[in-house]
Amino acid sequence: MDKNEAIQKFLHPESIAIVGVSKDFTSISGKPIKNLIQHQYKGNIYPVNPKYEEIGGYKCYPSLVDIPDSVDVALIAVSAKRMLSIIDQCKQKAIRSIVLFGSGFAEIGEEGSNLQNEVLEKAKEANIHILGPNCVGLLNVHLSLPMGFATSFETNRPFISGPVGFASQSGAIGFSLFGMAQEENIGFSYVVNTGNQMDITTLDVMNYMVKDEQTSIITGYLESIPDGEQFIRLAKAAKEKDKPLIMLKAGRSKLGQKAALSHTASMTGSDETYQAIAKQYGIITVNDIDDLITTVKVFLNQKRAAGNRVVTISNSGAAGIAMADYSEDLQLNMITLTEETKRKVADLIPTYGSAMNPIDVTAQSLKEQHILTDTLKVLLEDTTIESIVFQTTFGGELGFNICKAIAEIDAKTDKPILVTITGTDELTGKGRRYLQQNNIPVYKTSYETMVALSLLVQYSTKTVNDVQVAGENIYHTDEIKERIWTEVKVKHLLTNFGIRTPKGVLINKVDEIETMKVDWDIPKVCKVISSDILHKTDAGGVIVNIQNEQELAVAVKEITESVKKYDKEAQIDGFLVEEMVKQEGVEFFIGVKEDPQFGAIIVCGLGGIFIEVFKDVSLRKAPVSKEDAIEMLMELKGYAVLQGVRGKGSHDIQALARAIEKISHFAANQNGRLKEMDINPLIVLEEGEGVLALDGVIVWDEKIDHLIESL
Amino acid sequence: MDKNEAIQKFLHPESIAIVGVSKDFTSISGKPIKNLIQHQYKGNIYPVNPKYEEIGGYKCYPSLVDIPDSVDVALIAVSAKRMLSIIDQCKQKAIRSIVLFGSGFAEIGEEGSNLQNEVLEKAKEANIHILGPNCVGLLNVHLSLPMGFATSFETNRPFISGPVGFASQSGAIGFSLFGMAQEENIGFSYVVNTGNQMDITTLDVMNYMVKDEQTSIITGYLESIPDGEQFIRLAKAAKEKDKPLIMLKAGRSKLGQKAALSHTASMTGSDETYQAIAKQYGIITVNDIDDLITTVKVFLNQKRAAGNRVVTISNSGAAGIAMADYSEDLQLNMITLTEETKRKVADLIPTYGSAMNPIDVTAQSLKEQHILTDTLKVLLEDTTIESIVFQTTFGGELGFNICKAIAEIDAKTDKPILVTITGTDELTGKGRRYLQQNNIPVYKTSYETMVALSLLVQYSTKTVNDVQVAGENIYHTDEIKERIWTEVKVKHLLTNFGIRTPKGVLINKVDEIETMKVDWDIPKVCKVISSDILHKTDAGGVIVNIQNEQELAVAVKEITESVKKYDKEAQIDGFLVEEMVKQEGVEFFIGVKEDPQFGAIIVCGLGGIFIEVFKDVSLRKAPVSKEDAIEMLMELKGYAVLQGVRGKGSHDIQALARAIEKISHFAANQNGRLKEMDINPLIVLEEGEGVLALDGVIVWDEKIDHLIESL
Repeated sequence: MDKNEAIQKFLHPESIAIVGVSKDFTSISGKPIKNLIQHQYKGNIYPVNPKYEEIGGYKCYPSLVDIPDSVDVALIAVSAKRMLSIIDQCKQKAIRSIVLFGSGFAEIGEEGSNLQNEVLEKAKEANIHILGPNCVGLLNVHLSLPMGFATSFETNRPFISGPVGFASQSGAIGFSLFGMAQEENIGFSYVVNTGNQMDITTLDVMNYMVKDEQTSIITGYLESIPDGEQFIRLAKAAKEKDKPLIMLKAGRSKLGQKAALSHTASMTGSDETYQAIAKQYGIITVNDIDDLITTVKVFLNQKRAAGNRVVTISNSGAAGIAMADYSEDLQLNMITLTEETKRKVADLIPTYGSAMNPIDVTAQSLKEQHILTDTLKVLLEDTTIESIVFQTTFGGELGFNICKAIAEIDAKTDKPILVTITGTDELTGKGRRYLQQNNIPVYKTSYETMVALSLLVQYSTKTVNDVQVAGENIYHTDEIKERIWTEVKVKHLLTNFGIRTPKGVLINKVDEIETMKVDWDIPKVCKVISSDILHKTDAGGVIVNIQNEQELAVAVKEITESVKKYDKEAQIDGFLVEEMVKQEGVEFFIGVKEDPQFGAIIVCGLGGIFIEVFKDVSLRKAPVSKEDAIEMLMELKGYAVLQGVRGKGSHDIQALARAIEKISHFAANQNGRLKEMDINPLIVLEEGEGVLALDGVIVWDEKIDHLIESL
Repeated sequence: MDKNEAIQKFLHPESIAIVGVSKDFTSISGKPIKNLIQHQYKGNIYPVNPKYEEIGGYKCYPSLVDIPDSVDVALIAVSAKRMLSIIDQCKQKAIRSIVLFGSGFAEIGEEGSNLQNEVLEKAKEANIHILGPNCVGLLNVHLSLPMGFATSFETNRPFISGPVGFASQSGAIGFSLFGMAQEENIGFSYVVNTGNQMDITTLDVMNYMVKDEQTSIITGYLESIPDGEQFIRLAKAAKEKDKPLIMLKAGRSKLGQKAALSHTASMTGSDETYQAIAKQYGIITVNDIDDLITTVKVFLNQKRAAGNRVVTISNSGAAGIAMADYSEDLQLNMITLTEETKRKVADLIPTYGSAMNPIDVTAQSLKEQHILTDTLKVLLEDTTIESIVFQTTFGGELGFNICKAIAEIDAKTDKPILVTITGTDELTGKGRRYLQQNNIPVYKTSYETMVALSLLVQYSTKTVNDVQVAGENIYHTDEIKERIWTEVKVKHLLTNFGIRTPKGVLINKVDEIETMKVDWDIPKVCKVISSDILHKTDAGGVIVNIQNEQELAVAVKEITESVKKYDKEAQIDGFLVEEMVKQEGVEFFIGVKEDPQFGAIIVCGLGGIFIEVFKDVSLRKAPVSKEDAIEMLMELKGYAVLQGVRGKGSHDIQALARAIEKISHFAANQNGRLKEMDINPLIVLEEGEGVLALDGVIVWDEKIDHLIESL
């Protein structure tokens, strides 16, 4: 049974055993059976506890093996120490899906970690899958079937089923969020708490949800990404099926990462990389649980925005102003209406209103609702408008009637209509709930509404490019003889990619200067070549503006002395004598780093203060297409410099993008063996002049050492 | 009667007349009297409408002058056209405070604008103050006295009185926000809608609230700052009395500003300047109505935070991680606990909890509440901790008991305690309401809580420096002979401030070169001096690296040709021959601009791409102290460059701050006549070497022309 089948079983069991069950229904081990009974579970319930004969009207068994029938899911409320024997019992009973409520495994240190490994091994042998440990349970909302002891299972209201699937590493936050969302009429398919995810992870659960017919919006609370490749596959599959993937990712900060480690033994990984990956693959990342609810609401009616062109209508001038402000903040385009539409709207609204975007239909629209509904219809006919936001402070019966009218119009159009109703629950709650029940995104504040719209636009207009790696990996070839590739070798590689480098020759000692073939009309730069010296300038390993052979001889001598002074162990492999670059351009860098979660990540940005002071870089998982590379460049604040500032012309952005593309494919091809690559500086010349790599280094993974030895 | 006395009367009338009253209590002109009756207004009510004999049990009068007794406030629900005669009647009856509900004044164009001026003039003569037009009314919450037709007056719940005063330009948004805040148990003193503020403005109302004993938190919704100087006086007075001033400022974006102009005829001004002023004077600016409510809640109990050192406690590990993330985002310092405190906490909590910050007291604290309360007490004793945040998902009776225990502890300490209760209203609403009633800041999400704490810390630790202007204004002196001061004159001024400039001489024509006294060992730069040429380089007006007299002669000739080519009308006043600067340093700029709302604003930043690409500038109202200037520098992202990056040492930040201080005092001294001043570049040399101004220009206001002529 693969994980997917196991999760299917977890969520649709025909029989459930509860091991370590208690008669105290207020306790953690008593609540699961109480919840099953309260929610009228249709399948068989088998309490397991040698202390009791019967619990809640159900016969209680001394152990799992005493149960006469088959068991689909076992909920385990006993201590970690007893897990090995429980697994044995499950094996005997052919139980394949077990939920572990307790803790006491990897998160408590080495002892727990050893136990966890033993349990996992045993479970694997028996084809058993485990949810948890440190888990409060799971919920199939469609079946109204709660398995566990989450506080929100104890509600008096019926669960609201719907298209939202939720996988959460945290039980407390996950089910609190679920409860709060239910109070806003958001319907769910399943909620699964994975806890310390010894076996089944949030990614596995979300993967199930991508395939599941009942789920069309997938949400997750994650402290870690256990498997980067799986995460990316998940994102691609979700996008393929047009199911938005909405993530609340905790552990962004250093302290948060430390806390995550002690909480669920999770390694959170670099947030910078996570954010880049999320953006690249169209994953929506939110910052807190309110934002998650806000975002889910905009996707409930399955509408998509064709673009960012929005018109807002309001009965309050102030709200219009606020929405204009938020539009600018959120890169929404609050368009100028066409003359025709403006005229039609002006004919409908009172003269003291405003027929310009933001449209002010005035308070008169409360009494004469046709003002609003007719205006809405006019806007829906205008194909230049891609979404409509309506804001009101109206409440009471009249306000409620407006909500009904909007719902009616909304049902007949594919264009997203978002609504803000600002006011008390007492006055405006009924209208808001009506819209929510009709899956129309409705919020209390214009800011929330505009944030939701901007995320809808971002998601709707995002296409994920599936770039196939071109070229070959080279790490297994004869090419690799050293773990560190210095400038000469890297430049050779770049030349093969069509990236230009300055003309130069490598000499090994001063004697060779005489026989060198160089044109002394062009001044030279001399650089030390040594795999022990990664920062040549710091080591005094670079001398510029060398005019002739005599000066070069002096330079070689000086460099040798400086380098020896800098690091007396350093082995000098030679001296690179290159023509000095006369052309002006922008200093750029292209780098690659191997991320432990996501593999080869390509990084680029303008050099110098752009990195050091402004941290102005763009990241992507390699490989990227040339179009992706241009998107990366446009993301940089320093993009304006490439385009040309202070009277300078534009630089060769196309050639730069091609260089990024090439290097990214090379990086992606090395199967994780390329630890680090740094092309810095790469001079971006004027438009049409290309790029020129002035320096570069590659550091291969240590594993390469063995390879090198074997060559 | 000054505005303050008028506002006092508006808010505490002993008799109210309603002009244009209607018997239809659902209409705008019927609601005000209905609301007075419903809320059992204790004073006299005088309906005025010639059509009726009686309304709602009150005798109705044909006109204001027919009322037998005195009237404190007149609410006017008739059209703009009739206002002039109403003012006459008010004058006759000695009514000094009138509220104008309708519109039809400046916001509709020239005709309305003329009417408005007439009304205002008449009112001023009669010592009458006007609230509105385009206003839904006002509310004295302590007296439960609503004057107007705001939707939230029609609540069935009693108003909750408290320390929050609210002045709002918008009626719809203002009173909706008030209603929403009341549903969160936030008590208000007064809510005043100023509408198009023809006379009484939000600033006047907030000014009243600064003096008012009933109000200790002042909030405002503003589309414009009608009087910059008044705004700053208000901010200083509020800070003096330690009353936080919390502003929701709309019309930040271009489109928002355009909409504000058509909505309330408000000129919104530059948002960049507003934000700088708000920061400088300790005003809290929020982005939307949710944020305003969030912020108000943290100030209700009057506690202040000694600093940003915070400890969080939670029963959920996930919440701890989230709070750590948010702390980093919001510059809160989630401190490492002292060994002693850590030990004491560890003794209290279960072993599977965490005694490190974020502290995890685990779900066990639900059953054994002493775990939580004892931990809280330990933390309160630790003087290194400046605030405490408690997060829980607990609900039901046990959760409620925890809330009660927290309220008890909170009452005994001055340290701020903030609470997050994440969960449904069904399960956690009761506890949340209990804390709210006890004025303990409580939120649904950790993000809101941490944002509120960060604003509390910012406000608590902000000191506003009242810098007195030193020096004299010079615009009335003989010094000003031209409206544009070119480089030579500006450099002379800077030298007087102790700001160094390169050694140079001014020549008028080529002939003078021979007799010039300059040291030709140092290369020279030659620049054109012309008040017609503001951008010398663009005009080809600068030649560098001149080595001798011959080269200089050529340069002067070339410059003359280039400049004439650039602008054949340009008048050349001479040529500045300066020593070229050899010292390395950071290019900086200091500027002054006259803001129409706030007067002289000093702006500074690093030159080049720092401004053009990153818009990295810092603004303050002039004058600033040297300490303020250093704060300005530290605000810059480019501050790191001043401190020294890429192996360079630190630059002379002290000298730079002194230069900013001096220029700011000079600017503040010119009574609005200094339209623009630009020192660019100013080279910041190495530490101890000072600064060096390489160029500068001053543009005086056009009004100066008259002055110049008269000299």
